[in-house]
Amino acid sequence: MAAPRALCCLAPQPAPAYSVFRPSQRASAVLCSATASKATCWLVGAGPGPADLLTVRAAEVLRRAEVVIYDDLGAAAAVEAYAPPSAERVYVGKRGGRPSIKQAEIDELLVQAAASGRTLVRLKGGCPSVFSRVHSELAALRAAGIAYEVVPGVSSALAAPLAAGFPLTHPELSKAFVVTSAHDTDAMDWPALAAQPTAVFLMGGRSLPQIVEQLQRHGRRGDTPVAVVRQAAGEEQAVWRGTLASIVEQTAGERLSPCIVVVGQVASLFVPQ
Amino acid sequence: MAAPRALCCLAPQPAPAYSVFRPSQRASAVLCSATASKATCWLVGAGPGPADLLTVRAAEVLRRAEVVIYDDLGAAAAVEAYAPPSAERVYVGKRGGRPSIKQAEIDELLVQAAASGRTLVRLKGGCPSVFSRVHSELAALRAAGIAYEVVPGVSSALAAPLAAGFPLTHPELSKAFVVTSAHDTDAMDWPALAAQPTAVFLMGGRSLPQIVEQLQRHGRRGDTPVAVVRQAAGEEQAVWRGTLASIVEQTAGERLSPCIVVVGQVASLFVPQ
Repeated sequence: MAAPRALCCLAPQPAPAYSVFRPSQRASAVLCSATASKATCWLVGAGPGPADLLTVRAAEVLRRAEVVIYDDLGAAAAVEAYAPPSAERVYVGKRGGRPSIKQAEIDELLVQAAASGRTLVRLKGGCPSVFSRVHSELAALRAAGIAYEVVPGVSSALAAPLAAGFPLTHPELSKAFVVTSAHDTDAMDWPALAAQPTAVFLMGGRSLPQIVEQLQRHGRRGDTPVAVVRQAAGEEQAVWRGTLASIVEQTAGERLSPCIVVVGQVASLFVPQ
Repeated sequence: MAAPRALCCLAPQPAPAYSVFRPSQRASAVLCSATASKATCWLVGAGPGPADLLTVRAAEVLRRAEVVIYDDLGAAAAVEAYAPPSAERVYVGKRGGRPSIKQAEIDELLVQAAASGRTLVRLKGGCPSVFSRVHSELAALRAAGIAYEVVPGVSSALAAPLAAGFPLTHPELSKAFVVTSAHDTDAMDWPALAAQPTAVFLMGGRSLPQIVEQLQRHGRRGDTPVAVVRQAAGEEQAVWRGTLASIVEQTAGERLSPCIVVVGQVASLFVPQ
């Protein structure tokens, strides 16, 4: 195998004030192998759910974990599959009904666990780049002087459309796509979302009626194709295909969460006959 | 390990005309293990480059390949790392200066190779969901009655920002991001791109001056942060951080391709000091 390379390994060490940094200039900080990293905290994407949709690097890192702090979505199967039985497991995911752990508490947990000197893996559903609140954890680790490394993952924003059978881009139908979270529909810029050929909504289950209403109010036609993908690639995967005009009725009474909603012409491709 | 599950396995077989299909209704088509799949063609994301940023499933599929048809970006390292020496290797990537293989020829190659009955892996840089032209290959395979399965990958659109040190989303700075290709800047909807808090441009090296000019013409300020990430996570990774006003001058004379350009406030986070 080619030498594994770290995606991001930023030790809070003095470095030249370049806006350009090259591996050769910052070799110890930017590039390091998964086994020779100086990181004590690894922030790792768990992908959309199934344990074999983690990256090879993520699986390697998990196998060396002494503490795993993990979320609900996606991450549990990976912990089961790869973390050694001796690794301490700390669950910080949110689940309907239960009081959530605050992000500041998770940040503090990470710093404490990493400061103990044990190899810490912070496993996040999907990819740390997308709605993972990783920025808050990175800031806390940096403030505490803890070396970390980030391992990207397969985001369900991209994997869910494939699970439904279609890609997000297409040379004529979808030259761009926008990804957002439908958590707070009042705070969303609906005109800007409606202006993109394809829009992907994470956590769109509960707000499907608002998504449908707002996009039509801002210029999308009722016959615009929509796909709703529940638990992409997981055991309880379900896919609904319809239009802005039909999808709320089609999914009435169904349990949709966790789901991805894709709106745009690409969602009309490769519908099972 | 938890049983591996296929993300998408659509045999062109008769199926009920549901717009809803559940695993329980279409078990043989939608869910199948990587080793027990009926697929003869696997369309697999190779991730951003390093061989350990493939998914575990992608590596497993490659190990069983008899023919591998692969692209340039990202895919070569994975073929080297996982495909058996006996597997036939067919290179169809595009490279500056060389005449490109047309997509229709690639589609035909796929159909011919799959029809021979050998296990075929079509390996694509990044994720098949994003600017991979997988739609054309899926259409050809379906027309030829060939069962296929798609395996998602880590897209450089999401991994490159992490390689530069920051995530694409942030609760205040970036509630949405748009991804597009800067291949044909004349055909792009600049007002819509400028309206999103964060814009990610694939293949943005050559068109960086147009990106900068068009986004400012459509309302983005000159002090909007920009990151240019060449060969994210690869051996020749380089990152430039600047603003719309500064980035062209900062990167003058540099080889930028293959690169990702990220424009938005998130690109100001975690700049190395």
